[in-house]
Amino acid sequence: MHNDLAAALDIGGTKIAGALIDARGDILVRAQRPTPAREDGETVMAAVSAVLGELAADPRWERATALGIGSAGPVDASAGTVSPVNVPGWRDFPLVDRVRAAAGDRPVVLVGDGVAMTAAEHWQGAARGRANALCMVVSTGVGGGLVLGGRLHPGPTGNAGHIGHISVDLDGDPCPCGSRGCVERIASGPNIARRALDSGWRPGPDGDTTAAAVARAARAGDPAAVASFARAGQALAAGIAATATLVEIEVAVIGGGVAGAGEVLFAPLRRALRDYATLSFVAGLEVVPAQTGTDAGLVGAAAAAQALAGGPVPAAPPASSR
Amino acid sequence: MHNDLAAALDIGGTKIAGALIDARGDILVRAQRPTPAREDGETVMAAVSAVLGELAADPRWERATALGIGSAGPVDASAGTVSPVNVPGWRDFPLVDRVRAAAGDRPVVLVGDGVAMTAAEHWQGAARGRANALCMVVSTGVGGGLVLGGRLHPGPTGNAGHIGHISVDLDGDPCPCGSRGCVERIASGPNIARRALDSGWRPGPDGDTTAAAVARAARAGDPAAVASFARAGQALAAGIAATATLVEIEVAVIGGGVAGAGEVLFAPLRRALRDYATLSFVAGLEVVPAQTGTDAGLVGAAAAAQALAGGPVPAAPPASSR
Repeated sequence: MHNDLAAALDIGGTKIAGALIDARGDILVRAQRPTPAREDGETVMAAVSAVLGELAADPRWERATALGIGSAGPVDASAGTVSPVNVPGWRDFPLVDRVRAAAGDRPVVLVGDGVAMTAAEHWQGAARGRANALCMVVSTGVGGGLVLGGRLHPGPTGNAGHIGHISVDLDGDPCPCGSRGCVERIASGPNIARRALDSGWRPGPDGDTTAAAVARAARAGDPAAVASFARAGQALAAGIAATATLVEIEVAVIGGGVAGAGEVLFAPLRRALRDYATLSFVAGLEVVPAQTGTDAGLVGAAAAAQALAGGPVPAAPPASSR
Repeated sequence: MHNDLAAALDIGGTKIAGALIDARGDILVRAQRPTPAREDGETVMAAVSAVLGELAADPRWERATALGIGSAGPVDASAGTVSPVNVPGWRDFPLVDRVRAAAGDRPVVLVGDGVAMTAAEHWQGAARGRANALCMVVSTGVGGGLVLGGRLHPGPTGNAGHIGHISVDLDGDPCPCGSRGCVERIASGPNIARRALDSGWRPGPDGDTTAAAVARAARAGDPAAVASFARAGQALAAGIAATATLVEIEVAVIGGGVAGAGEVLFAPLRRALRDYATLSFVAGLEVVPAQTGTDAGLVGAAAAAQALAGGPVPAAPPASSR
């Protein structure tokens, strides 16, 4: 039985990836198309179908027991629809129904991409063996997901753990989501870069104004760059502490491009966490880097499929009926 | 079997209450002692033993299948200890072990008082039939608890849902907990009164400077009183929206003395919630007043005992082994 596979789709604003993944988390077959993000919804769906067709052409497709989809959000797992911010042709698009034809009688599980990354970290990464964890992606945006009581906690619509859009500064700057002072508004890569530029940091001769360039400047001691990462770390710490205070997590796992800045981000974040995570039951909270890499979306979609649909992948809870 | 009972203890800074409660949530037997909060730990324990002794003297004690304890926090359900802020004689006090002698072979379940109130609201009150809910007490402090996936979610130490100490203002005023800008620091009764006084509100001839007096002034149109309740509502809204964004709740239930202010609090809170709860999956969130009253602590301790220990109370999940 441990030879059984999961099929996985990872749907983002730039690419649509698919895979067949075994019970160890190894990717056996891959397929990928660019996301035609500016086209109409049917054109985007055609790219998904092409990816699924390529997977289904492989003889090992027959061994796949479930299909997991991790998608850029918002998603609505209860309705089976997706509305990715960067794919305007899909608004409440019935992705689960449209995929069922290819899936046959396999269960189809839809979760947000933050939840998928969390499933990957829980199965294969830094949250392995942890009963209660927050996993985050800090990149162009800030997303996340939760493990509670040893299980993935996607919430009814597959969006739980959306830490990027909790307000940690109720009078703060307006966020594109409509709220104010959201963690993402302070800690995402573009906001780290914007704040450094506003405070006097200047890019080098290559003109690189990404958060990665700010991180290099911070490592070299540029005060505006250091301060911008410190502020991001403070906002992340407040959000992580809020999560721990609300649901009792033991570890926060942080991945994504901005996390690649390393200690420039993690050191002020851990310092700030001591300021915000003060109650006895959250004081032991750890913050660690993510371990899964660029395939986290695919591996996580497979893990979510098995965890939520029931199936043979070792991390899964006891199988439930379809 | 529906005649089986639960025993309950509600331990606060001013009183220690006990009861035998039937499967409908009716209190059949009561016992109570003042909390000797300034005395040593053994003196406080003697008051607990007196309450339990009075319950055990009733012939219906034999029908109690579990003992639930809701205690002022912090608690540590994993260790069976309590450290109530207002009972300095109890620090990591092994309450569960000390109570076992009286409990016999009944399972003993310990939760924080916010979790107990949540269990009561889920069983008998405004969260009944809700799969995902936050229940809060806004009073001298701000506490709470969570229902997730149809079940009470106490967390490993029994403190989950502690919304009073999440920071919604990361640069805000220092909170006695050591953090800054906590919901409680802005929205508790004493902080509502302090802010109104600082802004020019003056009490009437009776000299009453409680939040209830500020609420009366707000209803009469006093601008400082109105503004102080609006600020409290804003902080509560930011905290409730954060909770919904993190764990996908459908309803927030608010009880406690300050909630008794009614629309003076609820109206600005609901307005502010529209500003902070912006994502599609949280936009439908409701805010409603609590329905359980002064016995919520006892009823909730009984409900938590049955829900977490397994037992015959209707709201409980399937029985598990002791």
